This record gives sequence, C-alpha cells and structure tokens, in this order.
Amino acid sequence: MNYRLTSYILGQIALITGFLLLIPFFVAVGYAEYSALMPFGVTIAICVCLGVVGILLKPAKDKRDMNPASGFVICGLAWILMSIVGAVPYILGNYVPSFIDALFETVSGFTTTGASIVNDIEILPKSILLWRSLTQWIGGMGILVFIIALLPKSDQTATQLAKAEMPGPQFGKLVSKLRFTAQILYAIYVVLTIILAVILIICKMPAFDSFCHAFSTASTGGFSIKNASIAAYNNVGVDVTITVFMIIFSINFNVFYFILIGQFAKAFKHKETITMLVIYIIATASIVVNLAYNKTYSNLAENIRYTAFTTASIMSTTGYCVADFNLWPVLPEAIILLLMAIGGSASSTAGGLKVSRVMIISKSSIRGVKKTLSPRGVYAIRMEGKVLPEESVHNVKNYFVIYSVLMILSALLLCITENMNGTDGLITNFTAVLTTFNNVGPGLAGVGPTSNFADFTVFSKIILCADMLLGRLEIMPILLLFMPKSWRRA
Amino acid sequence: MNYRLTSYILGQIALITGFLLLIPFFVAVGYAEYSALMPFGVTIAICVCLGVVGILLKPAKDKRDMNPASGFVICGLAWILMSIVGAVPYILGNYVPSFIDALFETVSGFTTTGASIVNDIEILPKSILLWRSLTQWIGGMGILVFIIALLPKSDQTATQLAKAEMPGPQFGKLVSKLRFTAQILYAIYVVLTIILAVILIICKMPAFDSFCHAFSTASTGGFSIKNASIAAYNNVGVDVTITVFMIIFSINFNVFYFILIGQFAKAFKHKETITMLVIYIIATASIVVNLAYNKTYSNLAENIRYTAFTTASIMSTTGYCVADFNLWPVLPEAIILLLMAIGGSASSTAGGLKVSRVMIISKSSIRGVKKTLSPRGVYAIRMEGKVLPEESVHNVKNYFVIYSVLMILSALLLCITENMNGTDGLITNFTAVLTTFNNVGPGLAGVGPTSNFADFTVFSKIILCADMLLGRLEIMPILLLFMPKSWRRA
Repeated sequence: MNYRLTSYILGQIALITGFLLLIPFFVAVGYAEYSALMPFGVTIAICVCLGVVGILLKPAKDKRDMNPASGFVICGLAWILMSIVGAVPYILGNYVPSFIDALFETVSGFTTTGASIVNDIEILPKSILLWRSLTQWIGGMGILVFIIALLPKSDQTATQLAKAEMPGPQFGKLVSKLRFTAQILYAIYVVLTIILAVILIICKMPAFDSFCHAFSTASTGGFSIKNASIAAYNNVGVDVTITVFMIIFSINFNVFYFILIGQFAKAFKHKETITMLVIYIIATASIVVNLAYNKTYSNLAENIRYTAFTTASIMSTTGYCVADFNLWPVLPEAIILLLMAIGGSASSTAGGLKVSRVMIISKSSIRGVKKTLSPRGVYAIRMEGKVLPEESVHNVKNYFVIYSVLMILSALLLCITENMNGTDGLITNFTAVLTTFNNVGPGLAGVGPTSNFADFTVFSKIILCADMLLGRLEIMPILLLFMPKSWRRA
Repeated sequence: MNYRLTSYILGQIALITGFLLLIPFFVAVGYAEYSALMPFGVTIAICVCLGVVGILLKPAKDKRDMNPASGFVICGLAWILMSIVGAVPYILGNYVPSFIDALFETVSGFTTTGASIVNDIEILPKSILLWRSLTQWIGGMGILVFIIALLPKSDQTATQLAKAEMPGPQFGKLVSKLRFTAQILYAIYVVLTIILAVILIICKMPAFDSFCHAFSTASTGGFSIKNASIAAYNNVGVDVTITVFMIIFSINFNVFYFILIGQFAKAFKHKETITMLVIYIIATASIVVNLAYNKTYSNLAENIRYTAFTTASIMSTTGYCVADFNLWPVLPEAIILLLMAIGGSASSTAGGLKVSRVMIISKSSIRGVKKTLSPRGVYAIRMEGKVLPEESVHNVKNYFVIYSVLMILSALLLCITENMNGTDGLITNFTAVLTTFNNVGPGLAGVGPTSNFADFTVFSKIILCADMLLGRLEIMPILLLFMPKSWRRA
C-alpha cells in the first residue's frame, strides 16, 4: 500500500464529507434548530482537520501510481472513514446515542440500504433527517465518483477508484476521459433527482419531504422521514411517481447517456434494461394474481398500486413500504426475497446481484447443459450484442459463489447472539442478511416493513454493517482489508 | 440417442429390479404375508416382460458405442424406470394407494433421501418394509454400478454409465478395468453393511430391524421401520453404532480401498475425509455448547449423544432422528441446514454438495481474493496432492450455480400450491427443497423430524421427486431429459 497516496485521497474524502455537511448545517440554521449546530459544526471541524492532514501528506507527482488492489483498499477505507465521520452528528446531538447504532444508521445511509435502528424518526430535527437522506444520495452514485468528477486526477488513478466503487460485473467508460464520464453520470443523477423532487411537490408532498425522498429514491436508498414510510402520505400520485422513479433509477445509467446523445436504438434495445423490466412485470403480475386469489386486498386497483410499488421498491433495492408484505401469502414473500437477491441493473444506484450478473449466470448455466450434450461445441456468451470474454464469465460466477458463501456465513454468525428462536428467528436472521447485503432495507418477520433493526445485538449489528458495505462495494474492497498483504508498504 | 442401446440397458435394469424384488417376495413367503405375494409377484412379472423386450432389442456389437450425453440420459431414464416399477408393490398391495405418494416413497428410497409420506410405518408388512429399505441400499451405491459389476460391458460404455451415476466432482477408477472397480466398491459396501447389521444385532436390535436399518444406514438413506425412527429403540449402543457407521458410509470409498490394499498413508492423509471430520467435529461441538448454554438437555451425556447422532445423520444425509431438532435454538438449526447442503464425501453413498466440492469452492474463492491483490500470480488449486485442472474448478463452480438456481426455483414452485403461510410456510417449503435436493430426509417446521411429506400437494410432490433425482444424480442426467436434442436419433 502507498500510505501517502492513501492518506491524501482519504483526506480529500474527509474534506468533501465536511463540505457536504454544510448543507444540513445551513438547514439547521434556516429552521432555527440551534441544538443541531454544535453536532454538525464539530463534525465539519473534524473533517477539515483530517483533510488538512491528508493534503499535507500529498505524494510527489511520480508517486501517485495505483494498482487495482490499492484502488479497492482505498475505496474500502474511504467508505469506512465516511461512515464513522457521518455518524458523529447523530452521537454528538444525542439523536442516536450509541456508537454502533449511529454507525449502523450511517452505513445503512451511505450504502443505500435504508435499514434503520431509529424507533421514532419523526421526532428528529429536520437537519438530521436531511443528513440521513443526503448520505443515501451521496452513497448512491458514490463518493469516489464524486471526487473524480470534481478534482483533477490521473486517468489511471481515477479508473482504479471508479472500478472499485461502481456496481456491476463490468466497468465501462462512457467517454474516453473518466473525469467526464463521472461528470456526465452526476449530471444525469442531479437532473433526475430535481425532476423527481418537483413532481413530488406537484403531488402535494411538502417541499422539505419531497427533497428528502428524492434523495432516498434517486439513490434507491429507502430512508423515509416518516415512521410509516411512504404509506404515511396515502397519496396515489406520490405512490405512482415514486414507483416509476424507483424503476428509472435502477436502470443502467448508460441508457440515459445513450438517450442524451440521441442513440435511441442503443437505449431502447438495451438487453439488461429489457430483462429487468420483464422480470419486474412477471413478478408484479404473479403477486397481483396471488393476492387477488387470496383476497388480500378488497379491490384490484389497490392490489395493483401496492404490489407495483412494493416490487419496484424491492427490485430497485430501495426498500420504501406502502404495504406490510410480511402479512402476504408465502408465494409473494418468496418472490420478494428472490427480487432482493436479483436487484437492479449494473451502473445504476441499485444494489443486489444486478440483472446483468443474473443474465450471465443463466446463460452460462444453460451453456453448461448444452456443453454436456455436445462437448465440442463452442458457445460464446453475449451481452448487449458483444461476445463476453470468458474471464468475465468466470468472474461473475466467482462473484456469485463468494456472495452466497458470505451471506450464509453472516446468517450463521447472526444466529450466535440472537435469541429469537423457531422459524421466526431463522427468517429474521436470514432475511436481515439478505436485505442488508443486497442494500434493500426491510426483510421479513422481525425485520419486516413495520419493524426495524434496533433489537439486534451489537455483534449482529457489526456483521450487518459489514454486509451492507460488502454488498454496496461488491465484496472485494472490504474483503481485501482483511488480507495482511494489502497493508504491506508498496 | 441410440434407442436400441437405451432399451437394452433399461431392459437389464428391469430384470435386475425384478431379481431384487425376489428378496421381499421370499420374505413375504417366510413371514406368511400372503397378501403381499400378489403385489410383488405381479411387479416381478412386469419386470421380466420389460426385461425380455429390452433384451430382444439388443443392438449389434458395433452399435453399442455411447457418448457421455447418452450415458447421462440413459442413467436418468433408468432411475425413473426403476422408481416407477419400484412403486408398483405399494400401489397393488394398497399400502400406499395413491400413485404420486407411492412414487414419492420409491424415489425417496432409491435416491437415499428417506423423506416419507407414510403416516404409520409400523402397520406395513415386513416384506414391504424390507423393500423400502432395500430400495435405499440399491440406490446408495447405484444400480448402474451394480449392473457394471454383474454384467460384461465395454469399458467405454461402463465408464459413461458410471460417470453419470457416481456422485462427486471427479470420477476416478480404482483399478484399470471399471468392472473390477465396481465389484470392489460393491464388495466393500456388502461387507460393511453385514458388519453393521451384526453389531446392531449384538446391541439387541431385532434381527429383521437390524438388516433393514443396516440397508438404510449403509446407503445414508434414512428410512426407518419405526415411526419414531431410531429414537424408538432408546438404546445407547444402537445410537453410537449408527452414529459411527453413518460417518463411515459418508467417507470416500477410495479410502477403504486404500486400506484394503495396505496404502495406509494414502488413506489416513485423505484430505476430503480429514476436512469432513473436522467440519463434523466443529459442528457437533458448536451445537453441544449451544444446547448446554440454552439448557435444552438436562445432562451433558444426553446432549452429546443426541447431537453427535444428529450432526452425523444430517451431514451424511442419512436423516435418521433421535432428537426433534425442530425444537432446538436457532444456531443449531442454522448449522443443520448448512450441513445438509455440504453433505458427505464424493464417491460415498452420501448426498449434498459433497465436501470435496465445498473445498474446491472455498479454495477458488480465496484464490479470487489473492488474484485481486496480485493479478499476475499463478495459483493452482490442489486436491489430494494433485493440481486440479482448471476445467474441473469451473465445473464445480458451474455445479454450485446450477444447484443453487434449481433449489431457489423449486422453493418458488412449492410456494405456488402450498397454503401454509408466514415464516412456518417459508421454512417448510425451503427446507423441504433443501432436504430432498441434498437427499437428507427431514427438514424444519412442517417437514421437521416428527412430521412427514404426506400433506404436500400433488404438484409439490412432483417437484420434490424431481429434486431428489436431481440431487442424487447430480443434476445433468435429469436436466438433459428436458432437452429436445437428447432425444434426437443418433
């Protein structure tokens, strides 16, 4: 590891975090929430100090080379740093007094999970609520991508950092310079977020609420500022708007870029997007039919409204709730668990395995069967019209294997200290891991839509924090932190 | 497909099945169970007819070539044929009147799963009980392996058939001629089964019961002839003996061969066996500590006796019960579910993923992390001291992926027609798939140790039968039956 380079980049992260903390600080000033000024002020000061130290350690120009492994390690450290710093206002303001709870809430924010340990959200000051939603918005597109967009960096450094942070099986630049790619992505992100906020205001959601929810929707995060989540508004317009935007934000951002530059054919024939929408429609239709058959809702319009919202919320890994799917029959529940694992598209703000990985896994499985029949046949796997290198196929399968193994181990670890037994205990622990690893938010049973994560033991909360980071950063940046070799001086 | 060759081999399978049915037939004569004579007699007649048709279709000597795909397809068809034929006595004797139930019981027998739909086993005649246990014994080592041992076959044909039926990631002959390998395997199997039966008799289990349980233990099947399974005997000697033999039968049979030919170093340094025993000991110790902490059993000896039996029963995928682990805390339950998926060793009679596959998956995952750190490093994966070809590593990962996907899809299909809701419903459906696919027997909640599979819908029973066959034959032989290309005339 290049310690000076690492410190320098972490210093930049601290400064940017401090800069972003100015937003809730000014909101606290604007809403006269004077008790929140100290917590935000002190945290900003901490960020500035860390930033100055980092900048002072700035390495010489010829010592800024970075290999892929360093990119991963710095990314992992950056996310842990901002999670700890981001938790400080909760603790200092006594809004979430326990360190592990504040850390859980912040990690859940940045990783766009949306799982909460706060029992009564509505008593928190507006500035804290905004910070909570803002963490999601920053985490959605990624803070390293933000830094790449803002600050000049060598394209090699930028590529390694972006690779580590951007979700999906492959990493592609939109334009030749990565800095411009990052700027384009953030521009699309900002514009879509503002459009969403405006539409929510038109639907008569209060302006403050609209911005908070726009942040949490754009990032497919799912933090709401209401205890009852989106159900609190009981507003068809809001439900429909958010349903549509949750889907939009789980589409591969390349598609929006293609639309921007007028390549409509490429945009509308994007296989990952089409597959995602087909899965979404089949899942929604299956649940609607099942709920109608079981007479869960008295009328079909209500059934479709709640189901369409829920499947969009789960598949986009947002995690907002308008219906308590914990009370649904077993088939809808099983479909919801499957959607959690699938998630949204690569290069979107959504979590989960990603639709493109699921496509590659399916294609490679079918190929396996075909190969048994005709061992000498050559079967290439194509994605978006191009033949995928075999190495990418192997990487996706490796990812699936490690992803499965880590989730199973996490669920086992949760069972050690949790004392809820029987099927409720198993489902609570298992879905807590599934929903945090895939950055969704709610699970089933003890972590269902009407419950939260407050009752877990400290040990379990640490595991779940790790799962959220593993899921958001797609495993390697966190796993590498545990390898002694990562820490060896380069 | 070579239809004549397929018919010829299926005819041999029918004849062998008919021959094996003579055993319960003579038992029925011996115990004066005259009502059972007709069912067995008619089934034997059916087998002879099918056998004669098959023999008449014997292809010319130069037309007996078989490619790997045909080996898989014939293996799949053979197992379906013997499952249908094996179900006939249950139906004709009115012991299990419904066709799907009789099929379920027979598939569960041959695949050594041990999941039952019979509510009261003890009222069945002895001849039927013996047939039930015998199906497990035949399925344990495999009927194709039996045919290879008995009848002369070209080594190429024998290899393709054995490859399709033998469990494990790799297929190795013990000696140069496959027929001798099959004979050695069956000889070890017969001798160990007899030793077990004799020890059980010494432990004062009735002779008939001892043989039935020896058949179900040797095959890691798990059918008991008592409603309360092995708990019915409440006999420490029996518990200990069966615990030890369940472990013995889940050891790679190559180890016994090494011992036979005096290569003790090879036998006692067999990595898969050592790993399996380490997993067994860690799992058992963890559960013992947890149960002691939770005061589930009043004394430690009882705790160890029941836990050691249960973990051996689950990991060997036998499925006998001496304790209702459905009432255990959540950590032991989670460990049990994990052991179900791991299973025993390759080339043993145990099911599950197999310890060697778990080893390869773990090694390959760790290699993935190392490769991220040093992309140019070369890391070979070794098994039993030899470098594993990369293709084998890929095949194991492919197997894990298809295995996971099929289990998830099966669980989803079960949710369609089952109407038990909530966490009980989810756990019942999920563990029913897990336990059948891995050929264990009991699951949790509705399919726990004190329950059975009688209440599932016909649709679910069909899915579970498919899962048992998929698990026992390691997927391909069954999956290929659904590919139109498999049926094309060669």
